[in-house]
Amino acid sequence: MSRILSEAEIDDLAVGAWIIGTGGGGSPYLNHLSVKRLCQAGQNFELIHPDELADDARVAVVSTMGAPLVMQERLQDSVDAARAVEVLANYLGAPFDAIMAVEIGGSNAFQPFMAAAHLDIPIVDADAMGRAYPEAQMTSFAVGGLQPWPLSLVDPRGIEAVISHVPTWKWMERSSRALTIEVGSMAATCKAPRTGAEVKEWGVIGSVSTAIRLGAVVREAQATHQDPVEALTEAGDGRCLFRGKIVDVDRQATGGFLRGIARLDGLDEWSGTRLEIDFQNEWIVARLDGHVLATVPHLICLLDTLSGEAVGTETARYGQRVSLVGMRAPDLFTTPAGLDYVGPRAFGYDIDPVDPTA
Amino acid sequence: MSRILSEAEIDDLAVGAWIIGTGGGGSPYLNHLSVKRLCQAGQNFELIHPDELADDARVAVVSTMGAPLVMQERLQDSVDAARAVEVLANYLGAPFDAIMAVEIGGSNAFQPFMAAAHLDIPIVDADAMGRAYPEAQMTSFAVGGLQPWPLSLVDPRGIEAVISHVPTWKWMERSSRALTIEVGSMAATCKAPRTGAEVKEWGVIGSVSTAIRLGAVVREAQATHQDPVEALTEAGDGRCLFRGKIVDVDRQATGGFLRGIARLDGLDEWSGTRLEIDFQNEWIVARLDGHVLATVPHLICLLDTLSGEAVGTETARYGQRVSLVGMRAPDLFTTPAGLDYVGPRAFGYDIDPVDPTA
Repeated sequence: MSRILSEAEIDDLAVGAWIIGTGGGGSPYLNHLSVKRLCQAGQNFELIHPDELADDARVAVVSTMGAPLVMQERLQDSVDAARAVEVLANYLGAPFDAIMAVEIGGSNAFQPFMAAAHLDIPIVDADAMGRAYPEAQMTSFAVGGLQPWPLSLVDPRGIEAVISHVPTWKWMERSSRALTIEVGSMAATCKAPRTGAEVKEWGVIGSVSTAIRLGAVVREAQATHQDPVEALTEAGDGRCLFRGKIVDVDRQATGGFLRGIARLDGLDEWSGTRLEIDFQNEWIVARLDGHVLATVPHLICLLDTLSGEAVGTETARYGQRVSLVGMRAPDLFTTPAGLDYVGPRAFGYDIDPVDPTA
Repeated sequence: MSRILSEAEIDDLAVGAWIIGTGGGGSPYLNHLSVKRLCQAGQNFELIHPDELADDARVAVVSTMGAPLVMQERLQDSVDAARAVEVLANYLGAPFDAIMAVEIGGSNAFQPFMAAAHLDIPIVDADAMGRAYPEAQMTSFAVGGLQPWPLSLVDPRGIEAVISHVPTWKWMERSSRALTIEVGSMAATCKAPRTGAEVKEWGVIGSVSTAIRLGAVVREAQATHQDPVEALTEAGDGRCLFRGKIVDVDRQATGGFLRGIARLDGLDEWSGTRLEIDFQNEWIVARLDGHVLATVPHLICLLDTLSGEAVGTETARYGQRVSLVGMRAPDLFTTPAGLDYVGPRAFGYDIDPVDPTA
């Protein structure tokens, strides 16, 4: 089942990962170019299904931690992505057999590719979010009660750290976030290592393929001058909830996050309505004229109406014509344990989750 | 030359370390009680001269990092002091042969004692400041250009981290400070390990004995109803620069530090004058009617006029009758390299250092 990804699939991944980034995870633009260049230089990227992992396989789980706005300004070097994995491997005293993203959404979809280019290990077709989330404890591995430590963190100036123990997933988020903020709100991390068995039981399986497939649908629609948003929803990947124009974005980079609210005026059948979407790196809650349309853990995807490509919380700006597509979260996040980590209340909203596809 | 310290010497150390803490390093009161109790329970504390260390001996360098004001509220457990050493030993793959304080000033004088009680290793008669300083790079080891990494950091709730590499001493300060602030502005740390040869070349030698001797002079004066400040200066340990009364203290716990300014009105021969002392955990610059009396790296010791015991930046309060005693810094801190780390300019004051004993 293992296969080498084509450059076209890597292009599809950039489009699809940004869509299911739900506004966050960072724009894949720069990392996509970086991986594309590695590809053109002859680097092969091998994608394996989690079933191909031995139960005791050692799997590195990587991401760039920080504020997406900062990632727009500070380019990521694939060497640093790999260095975070090496620092953790050195700490553990053994190399990793495979690598995966903690979040498939946004630029972090490419983090395992960037590291793998230097480490010569395959990329697992899975992640721990099935999208992007702002905090490190918002993972399927946390929902599964797996061990949150150790984590390594690397800054290109030569700051390297291992958080070797924490009492809770939230403390791993807090301690690694504190270091990330200190080095400039962006750092390469290698999260708590997973066994093959853990990935098979608790990973969001097939999410790299899902992102590639979504990106292919949009790119095909672009090439054939079809409506890309319609193509997406017709392919069964979510439901169109709104079309309109961005009229205001309040945005603050604070506490290592990008927070704020976007306001949109409706167009077409939504003419005369007002949509508001709160964000914390990702789109969290969407309200149409005060009525809750969609919330985390479900996917709130804001897409450029013409191109079908995602609009990020850090790139959304006045005047953009956009469509809102809702998608259902993986089942494991809609359980009580899942909602504890990624439901509206985990973000400070005292409301029940709303599935926009229901 | 190795010897077991008596309980009386431990009492002397509490008084002497607080005096050369120059207002910072944290009040030794609680840690002194903790070590006294270990002593009474039969624990022996062995003090060795650095010359007794083999050149390749492995020496742990410990401190509690954070804001002295917080240390007044959160009691330190000797188990955590030892745990920081264990975390670093585990990371390095070998135990330590001896232990020393990074700063002899204030409560950190007792940090090696607290750890040693669980580790069964001797305490080295040396430190890396000869006093207390607010930041981790303000050490004789930094002045000597020694390697700043790795460092371990422990919080009693089970947060443990190793900062395994940094490009500069200042980055070690910044990264460990960020974690310290996140866990509540106080954490047990084990700094970059030192060899016996490094301690002999770059340590402030004999500083534990110095603190014990100063404390003994003051305690003897108290017991015999002599003037303790006069006893100190007559014993050759500094010069009395001012007597007066504290009339105002501006104090903020900010950025992991205790910062502010104390204002004093003169008494006796200083009647009619105004003394101002700026502090950042420690007393940094003292001005009499606008004229600079004393600055870092020299020791600015504010003492209770009646008891001769130190007044800390976190305990100084309106109405206290105090005497200001200045002492000369160890020579290594008055070199250009030393002043780069601990001179007035390292604290943001564009003035030359002033030795109050000159």
